[in-house]
Amino acid sequence: MSAANPGATSPQTVHVPLGDRSYDISIGNGNLAEVGRWVTSLRKVTHVVLISDGNVAKYYQQPVEDAIAAEGIRVTSLGVPAGEQSKSVPTAQSLWEAALADRVDRKSTVVALGGGVVGDLAGFVAATMTRGLDFFQIPTSLLAQVDSSVGGKVGINLPSAKNIVGAFWQPKGVLIDTAVLKTLPRREYLSGLAEVIKYGVILDADFFAYLEANVQPMLNRDPAVLQKIIARSCELKAQVVAEDETETTGLRAILNYGHTFCHALETVSGYGEYLHGEAVSVGMLCASRLGEKLGVFDAESTQRQAKLLSALELPVATPKLSETAILSAMQRDKKVEHGKLRFIVPHAIGKVVLTPDVPSEMALAAWREGIEDESA
Amino acid sequence: MSAANPGATSPQTVHVPLGDRSYDISIGNGNLAEVGRWVTSLRKVTHVVLISDGNVAKYYQQPVEDAIAAEGIRVTSLGVPAGEQSKSVPTAQSLWEAALADRVDRKSTVVALGGGVVGDLAGFVAATMTRGLDFFQIPTSLLAQVDSSVGGKVGINLPSAKNIVGAFWQPKGVLIDTAVLKTLPRREYLSGLAEVIKYGVILDADFFAYLEANVQPMLNRDPAVLQKIIARSCELKAQVVAEDETETTGLRAILNYGHTFCHALETVSGYGEYLHGEAVSVGMLCASRLGEKLGVFDAESTQRQAKLLSALELPVATPKLSETAILSAMQRDKKVEHGKLRFIVPHAIGKVVLTPDVPSEMALAAWREGIEDESA
Ligand SMILES: NC(=O)c1ccc[n+]([C@@H]2O[C@H](COP(=O)([O-])OP(=O)(O)OC[C@H]3O[C@@H](n4cnc5c(N)ncnc54)[C@H](O)[C@@H]3O)[C@@H](O)[C@H]2O)c1
Ligand SMILES: NC(=O)c1ccc[n+]([C@@H]2O[C@H](COP(=O)([O-])OP(=O)(O)OC[C@H]3O[C@@H](n4cnc5c(N)ncnc54)[C@H](O)[C@@H]3O)[C@@H](O)[C@H]2O)c1
Ligand SMILES: [Zn+2]
Ligand SMILES: [Zn+2]
Repeated sequence: MSAANPGATSPQTVHVPLGDRSYDISIGNGNLAEVGRWVTSLRKVTHVVLISDGNVAKYYQQPVEDAIAAEGIRVTSLGVPAGEQSKSVPTAQSLWEAALADRVDRKSTVVALGGGVVGDLAGFVAATMTRGLDFFQIPTSLLAQVDSSVGGKVGINLPSAKNIVGAFWQPKGVLIDTAVLKTLPRREYLSGLAEVIKYGVILDADFFAYLEANVQPMLNRDPAVLQKIIARSCELKAQVVAEDETETTGLRAILNYGHTFCHALETVSGYGEYLHGEAVSVGMLCASRLGEKLGVFDAESTQRQAKLLSALELPVATPKLSETAILSAMQRDKKVEHGKLRFIVPHAIGKVVLTPDVPSEMALAAWREGIEDESA
Repeated sequence: MSAANPGATSPQTVHVPLGDRSYDISIGNGNLAEVGRWVTSLRKVTHVVLISDGNVAKYYQQPVEDAIAAEGIRVTSLGVPAGEQSKSVPTAQSLWEAALADRVDRKSTVVALGGGVVGDLAGFVAATMTRGLDFFQIPTSLLAQVDSSVGGKVGINLPSAKNIVGAFWQPKGVLIDTAVLKTLPRREYLSGLAEVIKYGVILDADFFAYLEANVQPMLNRDPAVLQKIIARSCELKAQVVAEDETETTGLRAILNYGHTFCHALETVSGYGEYLHGEAVSVGMLCASRLGEKLGVFDAESTQRQAKLLSALELPVATPKLSETAILSAMQRDKKVEHGKLRFIVPHAIGKVVLTPDVPSEMALAAWREGIEDESA
């Protein structure tokens, strides 16, 4: 489990087992150059609609377009502005219309090149254009590589609710190139690491220990360590998704560890103040303290998480915000049923439990005790 | 196969066999009154989003709402303007937002009450709201009862293309009440009969003969005959759909008998000039004459169709329109591949064959010979 020599890294594959919707995630360092051959190895493709955002297109659109075109495939490149606002009905409509104007048909394939915003949006366009087009993902943010590109959730926002319009639409393949993370802004990169740590806490204590042992290579974006943590994160998410593809059994809920506090924090602080992974960082520690209060989790394990998150420059302190606002945001969160609060509570590093009927005063206390670095 | 006494009609069920997406179509006379019990017999439902258009809501929204509410189900009634323009992105957006404003969640159920426009639109909203809601159809036009409510195609239009954005989203059940056809405008009703006749020509010679023998009861909207022809149409469409649910094998294409000519006619005459079934009527006769020219179909069978369509007050003559425009519309039709014209050509009443590589001059001749009642 030690960091290998970057030069020695060879590409690897994570299989996502979903019956006739199964597919592979190909992870490597520099494999973006092979995107054309990768696409044609998976499907007979004659026309690609390539969707990207401005920040990503600047670096990667031309090489991807060229590599795909080199296989004799016609490419329609469409761009959207970077940022969450592009996950909207008007942007989806502009993509539908632009694809149609360039002769999209039922045999066309959509390729998403970008972070979670582009993946969710392009996936929704793929799911709905001519009642469903083949879809490939090339996630370029760490968050997209370890989280949003796995699991088949695609969608857009309405002004009053995130991800409320969408579909389950699995890609035919996902290509992850760790080298593209070089251009990802540092804060975005660190934010993605919070979700990586989450997988360790919810499912894999060894993986958590590996992360603790590799803080410096992670900060340096060492390719071998990146490949290792991305592949393991994808494997763990794929396992959960395979057991509950369309979120009907409730098993998929464990992926929301830390996320009830996180969503409340994002809502009350105003979207944009915290990056998602930063709010996850704070939220996981709240959930851990809640575990302590419920008598199922020990303080040392909370401290281990706080130490790792801090070392990766993620926020660990709860900010001072109105408790009434936090509580009402948690009550509106989708993990609340019939007015009672439900949390994913850790029992040990590597094990979490969906816990209904948590008293709201106890949840607020777990929140409050994180203020002013009390948790560090 | 003779027309039964209306009083003697008992409800019947057509099963649509689609693996774990199978469902039943319940057909009766006056069964709308039982919609509440019907819904609860199929699923545990606590919240219904009922979508209808102005024309249909006027007669049927209140009784349906009351019957559903009587089962202790919360109902959110949403209305859209009648007409094809409602199958649009802005209307879908307004429905998503209105449903959300009235607390839609993943356990809500969408019920479409209306013609094909409402069915396609509400189905698309169901397919996409919170990544997919349960969906029930109560088709109220004859076209919706025999065609659009069977098969799971849902969707909306873009300004430049019909049905281009959508999904395959099967309902959990379809309820058909022949009594609601009483209020359907006569021209809409007759238009729906063209699709009924289409099923006879493509798949069932006995059914075609039954239609020939029951012109007067059909014109009178006799409930027993209506139930018979609707049930048989649903059965035949369900058979085809079951073999090619997502239109991948090409088998589903036979449902497009008459439709290449029909779409060209609709496009060139300007949408709204012909109702869809009226254009299907003209189109089926063009396809039949094409069959004669190809030496696979006999003139008497073309005449039988023309006589039946005429008796049901459907147009049989080709209108005078630019042949260049008709040809280019046919070439853009989705049944054209690689520039060659493909048609569903009848070989006998009850049997059609997908025929590629039809010379465009022959297709135009089949069109032209219908001008000025030459076919009657
Ligand atoms: N579908 C799912 O299961 C799922 C799961 C988690 C999150 N999400 C969604 O993902 C979105 C967030 O994803 P995100 O954090 O990737 O946001 P993002 O897509 O906005 O990317 C973050 C920023 O980094 C830029 N960027 C991405 N890759 C880059 C690269 N290689 N070099 C330079 N810049 C790059 C983007 O342009 C953007 O400015 C949210 O909309 C969220 O709802 C979806
Ligand atoms: N999904 C499919 O497989 C499929 C198949 C064929 C057609 N379609 C779609 O169906 C649509 C056409 O359907 P349509 O012909 O039902 O059109 P429609 O829904 O517009 O209905 C026709 C008219 O009849 C009115 N109406 C319907 N039922 C009535 C009733 N019982 N009493 C009084 N008025 C009533 C409507 O308000 C409308 O004015 C098109 O958009 C077409 O694309 C879909
Ligand atoms: Zn998250
Ligand atoms: Zn039709």
